Amino acid sequence: MAGTDHTQPAADAPGPAIILVAPQLGENIGTTARAMWNCGLCDLRLVAPRDGWPSEKAVAAASGADVVLDKARVFETTAEAVADIERLYATTARRRDMVKPVFTPRGLAGEMRQTMARGDRCGVLFGAERSGLVNEDVMRAYGIVTVPLNPAFTSLNLAQAVLLIGYEWYTSADETPPGVLEIGEGTPATQGEIDGLLEHLDHELTLAEYYREPNLRPTMQKNLHNVFRRAGLTEQEVRSFRGVVARLAEWRGRRPQK
Amino acid sequence: MAGTDHTQPAADAPGPAIILVAPQLGENIGTTARAMWNCGLCDLRLVAPRDGWPSEKAVAAASGADVVLDKARVFETTAEAVADIERLYATTARRRDMVKPVFTPRGLAGEMRQTMARGDRCGVLFGAERSGLVNEDVMRAYGIVTVPLNPAFTSLNLAQAVLLIGYEWYTSADETPPGVLEIGEGTPATQGEIDGLLEHLDHELTLAEYYREPNLRPTMQKNLHNVFRRAGLTEQEVRSFRGVVARLAEWRGRRPQK
Repeated sequence: MAGTDHTQPAADAPGPAIILVAPQLGENIGTTARAMWNCGLCDLRLVAPRDGWPSEKAVAAASGADVVLDKARVFETTAEAVADIERLYATTARRRDMVKPVFTPRGLAGEMRQTMARGDRCGVLFGAERSGLVNEDVMRAYGIVTVPLNPAFTSLNLAQAVLLIGYEWYTSADETPPGVLEIGEGTPATQGEIDGLLEHLDHELTLAEYYREPNLRPTMQKNLHNVFRRAGLTEQEVRSFRGVVARLAEWRGRRPQK
Repeated sequence: MAGTDHTQPAADAPGPAIILVAPQLGENIGTTARAMWNCGLCDLRLVAPRDGWPSEKAVAAASGADVVLDKARVFETTAEAVADIERLYATTARRRDMVKPVFTPRGLAGEMRQTMARGDRCGVLFGAERSGLVNEDVMRAYGIVTVPLNPAFTSLNLAQAVLLIGYEWYTSADETPPGVLEIGEGTPATQGEIDGLLEHLDHELTLAEYYREPNLRPTMQKNLHNVFRRAGLTEQEVRSFRGVVARLAEWRGRRPQK
């Protein structure tokens, strides 16, 4: 989704449609739009928003996600809002006593990627802030989405719920490594460069009589060396530390005596 | 985290500490507390909140996550707020030109689970709403967390950023299956029960002369049967459909002629 075009019409959006059924507060529509655009989603559909549309409060709360609000479409009924969608999912925190597939947001993301890969449109229904979706709307859906969170406190803000669905959708196609040492413009130091630093350090520490107990020397060296070995040093950092060692050594003996 | 005790003191919380540095709006502290408690987190620390503490606006926005706000602690400096933490991470959307490990929220969750499994405390720093963390605070951290979202619109609301970190933390230990057919109190139908339904249907359809073209019969049957085979029917649903077939058959011929 990295290359999402700001000018792309919502109806052709390459992600699932987000359908808010009877949303109450304009602010929540705005924060939903912001969360959607964070995740590259821009097909927002509103069913009978309580406080009307367009909404100045929505614009203020969208914090710049105008591309989503500008393309948002308003419908009178859920049936009209989802008429063009091949596969529909309903978000709900409560068990509805319906026989349906139930997905986590992560499971849903995989499901929707597969569905959209065959060219079918997906949509996710979200209910009103306090009451959620009515059973009639849940019944329309192929499957249910439930976010597995703290069972003692499952009440998610509307935009937060949309964010979690969008986040899983977005990251399911994202290839950012889960953890990596970021070294910017620098380059990692070679083993030879690190060896050079450690030999320099040992040499100066020996001159400075740091290793007073010869039998403890191997352990003391091992402890010091391990810090530098595991730090994943860059070339620049090796040079910096050689400068530190050289400077401390140069000043040895010149410190004013107490 | 399912069994998190509401009365548990924040300082002993079994999750990472969330540290908000110089947060501006009480509302955002409240929505952060709500997002934290959604994810079972309750160790909230505030560094020099601009509008003071406690905050009525925070309480209103927390929507009942009082357990987090009640235990929140306020500090004057970041150094004091993180003094007891063994491993600290900093959230930032911008590259800081620092040599540090960079994690996605999912990578961070695994990292923190490993760190906490050896008994070490973790904390995650979040900066002020508009400006983010100052470099001095990022420098304190062992690693950086960046959420991989729409590069054209990376500005995340403070509570949304906290939610994504908390969500990944929570779900990294959650065993909810990503997708499963939910059948509530019912039990899945056996192959024999489904065979019975399909034979019943075929029998009645034959009597009703649905299969008019004998050479098309195998294809017509295959299409009908596939719907029922892939639907994952329950025992109750098989009984319901047998009732439907029987009732339609019983009424055959009695429909008023046009």
